[in-house]
Amino acid sequence: MEAIKRTKIVDVLKSDAFGTTVNVKGWVRTRRGSKQVSFIALNDGSTINNVQIVVDVDKLGEEYLKPITTGASISVNGTLVQSQGKGQSVEIQATEIEIYGSADPNTYPLQKKGHSMEFLREIAHLRPRTNTFGAVFRIRHNMAYAIHKFFHDRGFFYFHTPLITASDCEGAGQMFQVTTMNLYDLKKDENGSIIYDNDFFGKQASLTVSGQLEGELAATALGQIYTFGPTFRAENSNTPRHLAEFWMIEPEVAFNDILDNMQLAEEFIKYCVQWALDNCMDDIKFLNDMFDKGLIERLQGVLKDDFVRLAYTEGIKILEEAVAKGHQFEFPVYWGVDLASEHERYLVEEHFKRPVILTDYPKEIKAFYMKQNEDGKTVRAMDVLFPKIGEIIGGSEREADYDKLMNRINEMGIPMKDMWWYLDTRRFGTVPHSGFGLGFERLLLFVTGMTNIRDVIPFPRTPKNADF
Amino acid sequence: MEAIKRTKIVDVLKSDAFGTTVNVKGWVRTRRGSKQVSFIALNDGSTINNVQIVVDVDKLGEEYLKPITTGASISVNGTLVQSQGKGQSVEIQATEIEIYGSADPNTYPLQKKGHSMEFLREIAHLRPRTNTFGAVFRIRHNMAYAIHKFFHDRGFFYFHTPLITASDCEGAGQMFQVTTMNLYDLKKDENGSIIYDNDFFGKQASLTVSGQLEGELAATALGQIYTFGPTFRAENSNTPRHLAEFWMIEPEVAFNDILDNMQLAEEFIKYCVQWALDNCMDDIKFLNDMFDKGLIERLQGVLKDDFVRLAYTEGIKILEEAVAKGHQFEFPVYWGVDLASEHERYLVEEHFKRPVILTDYPKEIKAFYMKQNEDGKTVRAMDVLFPKIGEIIGGSEREADYDKLMNRINEMGIPMKDMWWYLDTRRFGTVPHSGFGLGFERLLLFVTGMTNIRDVIPFPRTPKNADF
Repeated sequence: MEAIKRTKIVDVLKSDAFGTTVNVKGWVRTRRGSKQVSFIALNDGSTINNVQIVVDVDKLGEEYLKPITTGASISVNGTLVQSQGKGQSVEIQATEIEIYGSADPNTYPLQKKGHSMEFLREIAHLRPRTNTFGAVFRIRHNMAYAIHKFFHDRGFFYFHTPLITASDCEGAGQMFQVTTMNLYDLKKDENGSIIYDNDFFGKQASLTVSGQLEGELAATALGQIYTFGPTFRAENSNTPRHLAEFWMIEPEVAFNDILDNMQLAEEFIKYCVQWALDNCMDDIKFLNDMFDKGLIERLQGVLKDDFVRLAYTEGIKILEEAVAKGHQFEFPVYWGVDLASEHERYLVEEHFKRPVILTDYPKEIKAFYMKQNEDGKTVRAMDVLFPKIGEIIGGSEREADYDKLMNRINEMGIPMKDMWWYLDTRRFGTVPHSGFGLGFERLLLFVTGMTNIRDVIPFPRTPKNADF
Repeated sequence: MEAIKRTKIVDVLKSDAFGTTVNVKGWVRTRRGSKQVSFIALNDGSTINNVQIVVDVDKLGEEYLKPITTGASISVNGTLVQSQGKGQSVEIQATEIEIYGSADPNTYPLQKKGHSMEFLREIAHLRPRTNTFGAVFRIRHNMAYAIHKFFHDRGFFYFHTPLITASDCEGAGQMFQVTTMNLYDLKKDENGSIIYDNDFFGKQASLTVSGQLEGELAATALGQIYTFGPTFRAENSNTPRHLAEFWMIEPEVAFNDILDNMQLAEEFIKYCVQWALDNCMDDIKFLNDMFDKGLIERLQGVLKDDFVRLAYTEGIKILEEAVAKGHQFEFPVYWGVDLASEHERYLVEEHFKRPVILTDYPKEIKAFYMKQNEDGKTVRAMDVLFPKIGEIIGGSEREADYDKLMNRINEMGIPMKDMWWYLDTRRFGTVPHSGFGLGFERLLLFVTGMTNIRDVIPFPRTPKNADF
């Protein structure tokens, strides 16, 4: 076959160089036609859109074309022409076709018929070849890129916090243990305790549940940092909202107070959503039309207005009034309760009809490191609440005062034996600082409209499932 | 203190708005001066450069200034003035100073005196506050950003491969086991084998050693992808080149052959080095002057010429000639040997005096998935060899033929029981494809001139060390 430089299909579809010879390569989505002419819909992953290849059956031979079925991979030389068909502007009249690989229609699982999301999860190694997952993973890339660009443009430094950790301050009980010990030959001391001296790290080690504490170390040196990396939770929850391995973004900024933190969170999430609308419209439109007719409207919706800023105490009042007026919630509403998703969504979707940043939560339901308010009851926490999702971002101003922080740690009985390094940030040159965390897959649920978190990460890790 | 919007020091130093009142916040690097006037060198992490704060001691009070020692954190309001001092263009005449936190000179470890790299590793939680590690981590951020930008601009999709895996195809024996089992109460079957049914994933699970195989799944769907994530190696090596947890970048491209792959690798690494020179010169210059006087020249050097492209067999000939002429290598040279760093560096630094891409290695020393050449002896591997570092990138064109791949797997006795999903890429719509891997810390050693890999990652994980 004549060697012609390949053009990606995303570029071919934008081209108007009619009459020129081009080469495209990709996977066959469908082939249909008659004895005289065959139409191949070809996709190469660069866009959700296929290019149509028109084949003169006599010229290339019916027998030769036989292996060109759904899933087969081919290289096509042909002439770019203006398309007469609906919904496409260009097509390619094939002059030569090379078949790289066939896909036996009897065994290839991705035939034209629709597949359930459950079935596609079982073939997660092939599902990126579908329209739906191609769209989701192109959007996933774009959201990751938007996040890096947002922070880079604002002078933040990307900071890699460790995955393996010997600290267990936050997530004790829900952590995965990491070991190189031979489990058939565990050494124990005279009290029957396992001796970790010969484990790889010389002590018990686990997978991190958050990079925040190390992020604070970095922010109190480099000023503005963000993390973006995998995080682990050994929670035995088989729900559409939980993953054992997921990706988190955690910015942390020295000298930012809770107000700066709210502003950063709002700008950040709006930037991501705007980026998706500006750069992923083909994919979003597909998901909107196939799965979630309100998707585009919801994305545009969060960009329109300023987010509401509301104290938790005020939020509880609104919810109590709703109950008094007859609104039914599954879970009870009272000051001190950790809000359920239904409460958060009531505030966002029914009461304010726009995103809400809820602040100043009761200290009992928030982490030890949050800055204590003067009322003695609340802390400078902030959760960003979104339509359909509920909490999408959680953050706070951090307690910068060493004594107040230690009091809270003692009150809560947190084991700080391995945390001397964290406390050093308050011991030496302590500064006001704030940060927040965004679960990357939570953002993707919002941007793609998918309803199960297992469908926005390539290879979900969940109880009893570490396949691929 | 009067509320004035903070300006970052990197911006203050570029400003010429002399006479205006500004606010800066940061950590004190040094304070010196006389009874009348005090000079504070203030750094906020945004740049390696400090801004000088000039304080009228009488005005603010000697007693008030006492806690302003190295490491203390302060907020300064003052007038921006043109500096008379050498090496700085602006300084700030303080009108008000607020002290956020002191740093007791008796206990704060980062006093002005120089510290050994070994000591700084022991206080890895504070070392980002030093000039050296501030520079290294700002460069680390910039390299990560350059990588994302390079691939995004070329239409690649960032693809998150899993960290926890139940496959053990490549790294068996050097993997970390991940478990939630109670090690004090391991269930065993009648043969004494541990029953993994009740472990979190229902089977034995480990931390990944590479995302490549999953990356191939993605490339054969989305066309061009790259991974950038943590990778783990439970190798008990206490050397300046090994980490148990490190970050890898692995691009994978459908329809690319070995020549395309070489071109991509060369463009990619040159882009990163050029980015560092364009965006990190203050930090690089500091590292050049402090540690490695050849750094800038070496960085510029690799940009100058095309990389040499050379078959392994030709490389061995050159090395054998060198030996014949009396050059002494520690390790033997013969066809079939896995080259040592000294061999690679000889080719790069002494023979060609520029980077070398070595290709077509003996199949015995390379991985099972590499495309087999027709000679039956070599595979389409490619290693990019760099001055000072040796191998910085390793990659190959992949074997696309199902039967050839299976033969090689059987020859090498690789357990493929869990690898049906990988083989499906060759079973259904197989395509020529290529990719490579870059150890992120290896790149950083090159760009920063640091000599120990523990000094280019914030919190190194090595045998017996998972602190912070």
